[in-house]
Amino acid sequence: MNVALISVGTEILLGNIVNTNANYLSKKCAALGFSLYFQYTVGDNESRLTQLLRNCLQHSDIIILTGGLGPTEDDITKESVANVLNRKLVMDEESKNRIQAYFDFRQGSSPNPMITNNNWKQALKIEGAIVVANDNGTAPGYIVECNPEVDGNPSETTKRIILLPGPPSEMIPMFEKRIEPYLRKLQDTVLVSKMVKICGIGESSAETQIIDLIEKQSNPTIAPYAKNGEVHFRVTASAKNIDEGNRLLEPILDELHKRFGDNIYTVNEEETLEEVVVKLLRQKKLSLSTAESCTGGLLAGRIVNVPGVSDVFKEGFITYANEAKMHVLGVKKETLERYGAVSEQTAREMVEGAIRVAKTDAAVAITGIAGPDGGTPDKPVGLVYLSCYAKGKIVVKECRFKGNRQKIREQSVINALDLLRRLISS
Amino acid sequence: MNVALISVGTEILLGNIVNTNANYLSKKCAALGFSLYFQYTVGDNESRLTQLLRNCLQHSDIIILTGGLGPTEDDITKESVANVLNRKLVMDEESKNRIQAYFDFRQGSSPNPMITNNNWKQALKIEGAIVVANDNGTAPGYIVECNPEVDGNPSETTKRIILLPGPPSEMIPMFEKRIEPYLRKLQDTVLVSKMVKICGIGESSAETQIIDLIEKQSNPTIAPYAKNGEVHFRVTASAKNIDEGNRLLEPILDELHKRFGDNIYTVNEEETLEEVVVKLLRQKKLSLSTAESCTGGLLAGRIVNVPGVSDVFKEGFITYANEAKMHVLGVKKETLERYGAVSEQTAREMVEGAIRVAKTDAAVAITGIAGPDGGTPDKPVGLVYLSCYAKGKIVVKECRFKGNRQKIREQSVINALDLLRRLISS
Repeated sequence: MNVALISVGTEILLGNIVNTNANYLSKKCAALGFSLYFQYTVGDNESRLTQLLRNCLQHSDIIILTGGLGPTEDDITKESVANVLNRKLVMDEESKNRIQAYFDFRQGSSPNPMITNNNWKQALKIEGAIVVANDNGTAPGYIVECNPEVDGNPSETTKRIILLPGPPSEMIPMFEKRIEPYLRKLQDTVLVSKMVKICGIGESSAETQIIDLIEKQSNPTIAPYAKNGEVHFRVTASAKNIDEGNRLLEPILDELHKRFGDNIYTVNEEETLEEVVVKLLRQKKLSLSTAESCTGGLLAGRIVNVPGVSDVFKEGFITYANEAKMHVLGVKKETLERYGAVSEQTAREMVEGAIRVAKTDAAVAITGIAGPDGGTPDKPVGLVYLSCYAKGKIVVKECRFKGNRQKIREQSVINALDLLRRLISS
Repeated sequence: MNVALISVGTEILLGNIVNTNANYLSKKCAALGFSLYFQYTVGDNESRLTQLLRNCLQHSDIIILTGGLGPTEDDITKESVANVLNRKLVMDEESKNRIQAYFDFRQGSSPNPMITNNNWKQALKIEGAIVVANDNGTAPGYIVECNPEVDGNPSETTKRIILLPGPPSEMIPMFEKRIEPYLRKLQDTVLVSKMVKICGIGESSAETQIIDLIEKQSNPTIAPYAKNGEVHFRVTASAKNIDEGNRLLEPILDELHKRFGDNIYTVNEEETLEEVVVKLLRQKKLSLSTAESCTGGLLAGRIVNVPGVSDVFKEGFITYANEAKMHVLGVKKETLERYGAVSEQTAREMVEGAIRVAKTDAAVAITGIAGPDGGTPDKPVGLVYLSCYAKGKIVVKECRFKGNRQKIREQSVINALDLLRRLISS
């Protein structure tokens, strides 16, 4: 069964809000095993929405709309659906009582809410629709089952139009509590997926390594995602139940592990690179400190993303100026003069300094030229040295990154985390 | 002139990424004075994209596509546009050289990048298209001017199809540098706008203070944007030329300054809070250091966002553990035991320590409980102490932020920057 998603709201077309509803519902549809071919956004305009609905009814089994259920003149979603299906809007007594109760409850709160005629508009339902209660606002949702006319006759397959309120704080609870169970009953298969996350290989080179697997895919499927210096492959199986899905995934995951080896840092969708690193440090009982120059705290900031990291991460040094590198980390003046602040030698002395001052078991250091200025033919913008210490060993890696200041700094952080991961898991 | 926006990418339909490109481009179209009636998202599927393009060409003057310009088999945007316009894909020598140079530059870095046949696909252009250079990646953009057939004849009005890469870090700089100037030339009125950026007042309270101005708006218009602890108001005038636009903006900007006073930190769209702070420090010839606990380097990371900041920012301390607060910054053991790590007293000693150790003229410190654990009834998650030193004065501010770990940390950083701004400009 395939779904079309329609977000209604001029505020989205003006760019005043980011359409997170479409993202949320897309994820949900994928997890439920529905195919989503199109997302649409349309303004608060009845003729354009009506035209779009007619089009979607031809190609989709389920249409999910968000927005346009409010009390104002602008809100035209219900009206447009009723129009396309040739149905009337009728008063729904239960909705009416619910709205009255909502305002009674808020009496006395400031500003004092007043029921206007507009509010009663929210109690109108499309004839024959299932009314879906809204626990977090006044606009109910609706499920409309219909057999729209095709060449003058009602369609043989039943189609569904689902209307949801626009604010995520109302839409999400309504979807999870009442719409998801309804949709699940329509499906006889489940989708099980794993996200294979890879660091240290470029996107097109990673893809080339498994192009044969991608091309022959049907079930499971493999889809690549490039993500700022990382490559993710989503492997998805369609099955009768979760166990069967996992069985189908197993051989393909084995093959990916065989081909990518320790470039894979996790197959858990929820797990980030910094979480994997912190988990490894915790397992090996290693404490960590950081020393950063061009990244200016972003590496530590990312490690501290992990809740409860204080048992592992002790302290970080941001030694942006050369004097700071010397007096905080004890980088030698001669080293800076002879090799420069962006050099293998300085990176090495920074990591040694971090270990000495913070007395941790492991450390990471970053020094580089993030630009836009400061590059030379010898040391161009994008040249970055990463250095790690753990288990009595120092490794230093020279990288040349492309992109603007921010991109170079982000790639430096990811590659530093990856270097540490490899060193402590080696 | 009206615009249709098409985002191409199965990853968006699967909900793996939020479509921020559509939001960004919608905002830009509104600012340029183009009408946007529809946003579309379609997967990496040539037949569906082709069908959508044919439909859009009938109703839109300009079609902007993002995504699907990568090197893989999946990337079908160029192919689909060529197909719809009956044009060929031809090798563009300049793009070819650029890709070669990109890989040459990265030679020697590890992992060693390899050009694959896939990469050359990115050097193909649609016949007759204007190639738009990409400073931050290998995929060029394209502008295709065309007169597509209507009932067998070429259309009278010229239509434009604009193809942009999907990653925001490539798309945004390309749009701002090369596409925006091109689009601006197509318009006969100009829109002149200022972004009034405010810190230290909540969104709804800020909006209430100027609701009379927002409601009576026609030209200039005022539109609010909430941005993670900041509130931005875009004030836009439509005029014959830039001078007239600026004249129209003047009285409304004066009024906003009168109402918000020093809560406004800039009216320059491009200028960030950290840039304003660095500029102030530079004007007053003050050097800066930072001391962070729960934000773990994010404050310093944001300051180091500003290119060339090394004359102002000297060093930063990430003292996540209590021992680090003591031995790096000299926070007293008694202070930690008596008042706790999250207290006014500790914040004060952290900032004093930063000044003493880094020998800078100014310093900022942050200590707080970012959660999800670690809160108590006395000191709940979200309790954060900010401390600043400058011009012989220490100020400490207690904040109580709402939201998840990341949101609490982001708000801490913004409010710390704002506290420093107010102290040094007072």
